[in-house]
Amino acid sequence: MVSKESCRNEIRAAIRQLSDRCLYSAAKWAGEQLVGIEQDPSNFTPSNTRFQRGSSSIRRRFSTISTPQPSAGFSQPPATPLPQEEDEVIDGDLYLLAKSYFDCREYRRASHVLRDQMSNKSLFLRCYALYLAGEKRKEEEMIELEGPLGKSDAINRELVSLERELSALKRTGAIDSFGLYLYGVVLKEKGNESLARASLVESVNSYPWNWSAWSELQSLCTSIEILNSLNLNSHWMKEFFLGSAYQELRMHSESLAKYEYLQGIFSFSNYIQAQTAKAQYSLREFDQVEIMFEDLLRNDPYRVEDMDLYSNVLYAKEACAALSYLAHKVFLTDKYRPESCCIVGNYYSLKGQHEKAVMYFRRALKLNKKYLSVQNLLASEVQKHSSRKLALQKQQLLVIFLSQPSIKILSASHEFFKHVFSLSNFKIWLGWGARCFRDLFHTTTT
Amino acid sequence: MVSKESCRNEIRAAIRQLSDRCLYSAAKWAGEQLVGIEQDPSNFTPSNTRFQRGSSSIRRRFSTISTPQPSAGFSQPPATPLPQEEDEVIDGDLYLLAKSYFDCREYRRASHVLRDQMSNKSLFLRCYALYLAGEKRKEEEMIELEGPLGKSDAINRELVSLERELSALKRTGAIDSFGLYLYGVVLKEKGNESLARASLVESVNSYPWNWSAWSELQSLCTSIEILNSLNLNSHWMKEFFLGSAYQELRMHSESLAKYEYLQGIFSFSNYIQAQTAKAQYSLREFDQVEIMFEDLLRNDPYRVEDMDLYSNVLYAKEACAALSYLAHKVFLTDKYRPESCCIVGNYYSLKGQHEKAVMYFRRALKLNKKYLSVQNLLASEVQKHSSRKLALQKQQLLVIFLSQPSIKILSASHEFFKHVFSLSNFKIWLGWGARCFRDLFHTTTT
Repeated sequence: MVSKESCRNEIRAAIRQLSDRCLYSAAKWAGEQLVGIEQDPSNFTPSNTRFQRGSSSIRRRFSTISTPQPSAGFSQPPATPLPQEEDEVIDGDLYLLAKSYFDCREYRRASHVLRDQMSNKSLFLRCYALYLAGEKRKEEEMIELEGPLGKSDAINRELVSLERELSALKRTGAIDSFGLYLYGVVLKEKGNESLARASLVESVNSYPWNWSAWSELQSLCTSIEILNSLNLNSHWMKEFFLGSAYQELRMHSESLAKYEYLQGIFSFSNYIQAQTAKAQYSLREFDQVEIMFEDLLRNDPYRVEDMDLYSNVLYAKEACAALSYLAHKVFLTDKYRPESCCIVGNYYSLKGQHEKAVMYFRRALKLNKKYLSVQNLLASEVQKHSSRKLALQKQQLLVIFLSQPSIKILSASHEFFKHVFSLSNFKIWLGWGARCFRDLFHTTTT
Repeated sequence: MVSKESCRNEIRAAIRQLSDRCLYSAAKWAGEQLVGIEQDPSNFTPSNTRFQRGSSSIRRRFSTISTPQPSAGFSQPPATPLPQEEDEVIDGDLYLLAKSYFDCREYRRASHVLRDQMSNKSLFLRCYALYLAGEKRKEEEMIELEGPLGKSDAINRELVSLERELSALKRTGAIDSFGLYLYGVVLKEKGNESLARASLVESVNSYPWNWSAWSELQSLCTSIEILNSLNLNSHWMKEFFLGSAYQELRMHSESLAKYEYLQGIFSFSNYIQAQTAKAQYSLREFDQVEIMFEDLLRNDPYRVEDMDLYSNVLYAKEACAALSYLAHKVFLTDKYRPESCCIVGNYYSLKGQHEKAVMYFRRALKLNKKYLSVQNLLASEVQKHSSRKLALQKQQLLVIFLSQPSIKILSASHEFFKHVFSLSNFKIWLGWGARCFRDLFHTTTT
């Protein structure tokens, strides 16, 4: 039986460990689950209450289990004890410096500082920084070399050496859970899905609190057979994984059941609420979904992720005022995110301003080429309104589609930035930066 | 007497505290000084030795003190004891979440999570996140609204409310050193230099390890009279401050004397070496400067900061091969940094490819409008080669110059990003992103 307090302590320690390794996206996910755990009434402080209030009624309202067990916890084996941090006295100072370079996004410098350090922690940060330096370069090249077909063959040039080093360490067993996670990411990018899965399974079995590792693993579970074949240890993090994996495999009832179960402890998790809303959306329960998103936005008013889905619902329901409010809100929060552009596109589409709608959907696609749902929206928008100009854009859209070698490969890279890379907006800035640099080349040389 | 070990312990604790508050630039500076402290021979490990080797001979070579006191330490009062962290049990979980949002650059979300938290630490992060959200918006607006004169009146819209809140806290004494630092930054941006100085002095006197606070203070010391009027407690960090402040005031001998003194403990500090090289550059000691930069680059091969100065030296010495190597190196490390563009510009200028040189200097200026030295380089480049095209660029340059309301104001904002904001490349990405967004607007609507 895992108690709330035990979950809380596990997550607190995990956040420190993940942040220490610059796995910020995983730390953020963990942080959201941490504050999603219902407080014991005895520990309520006014501020904690305020943070969690508001949502409970809604969450209970859509609970399909009539009597949730708020404090019972999970009936599963005791949680894996949190691994002890190694003694890092010797290379501690260099690690502090490397991490500070990493935090200032100087990846090669971070990696260089740790070149002679032998601890697992240093090894991970050195390799991870090198990997990100390679990704950064790859993204720059992709955009600089982007031809009329909108793609390029840019690759992360660090992958070969990283695979060589990590596989050698794996053979000798001198690799920890974080190294195994990175090895899995590298293998996946090299196209070795089966070995990647094995490495990621080993990583989550030895350290289940790294959501980025679970996300990578999920992206490699493209069928229920693959999912069932994984040999995963029991842990409450596995339930989160299954909830998400089932959803991707469109097994919405199974997914909802997992989330219902998890709400026994994580009653106030915004993540679970958004995931539940997504499943309900797929089941076309638009009224429920709308209420859930309203609630989510009340609790987390500067949230942008998943709000594109909410805008789809408002569009379908022709809720113009609410859609206008949402568009305004996300535009102020961060207008350079693809979700924001999608929401604004939906708003203009509903207002009948189709050229503007197409413009914003195209922007969303420029910001994130793997934004599948926006590709559909754009296609539909173009189809609906086939003026001469829009017909041209339809043609352009077709080119975008045809030029994508494989949605799966691209989507893998997207997942990397979303879940692994830890800096959710990085790619957008990077994309804009490089694209603009190319434009600058163009305007200053012509 | 401050021993090396005591300095080391102070800095280690400070890095944790600065990182905990997302003051990454200050943490990076501290990290560089930490590994700049000479190891006691008894603690030498092969890797530590390797990290520090290489440079010692050079640093000793240019030491004007014939007998440095490597282990004597500083003859000054004992260091301020490191402040104890407050008990953060109650708002700890929300703080962890807010920090993870901050690390993923979701500033408004980070600020919102801490809205009801009362501890000094939470208060600082909430206000700091809000400040950065305002800066981000300001930068976007500056670039979006940028007219033909290349400027705009965009302001950080959070300044008013931040000043109100922080001044109220200051009156009641409910503000810590970090809050005072932020208050100083806000006051400075509001143009209240005298109050800003007072707040920053109070901040560094109570917590001397925040280099960002010292840097802000330095930017407000525009004369030796102001500098001498500051009532600063003794601390070794004050010596770093004075070294840098003297340099800005062009008191190079005084500055060099401070750095000589500091090298008694920080014998391997790359920062001190770069500062010394800058002073020698102002004294036109190009041969010394060249050797110092060569040494710096050997120790810290992915360093970009200050390397534009090195390229100036190589240009002056017409060292084409070395300049080509440097240009190649920084371009691979990070070509989207203004320093990199300046170095490449110098390279092309030396090769006699003046159009390319102008192009790169213009890029450097686009990336950082306050890049004074590049403005001079560009002006000189344009003057030297007045073809029809270049004459046009000269005209454009004039427009850039005329349109800058006040170099000081702009330079203040630059300092913010360089020292305060903690994410050294942020502005560049932001700049490119917003500029490109504007271009996109342009290309998709025309």
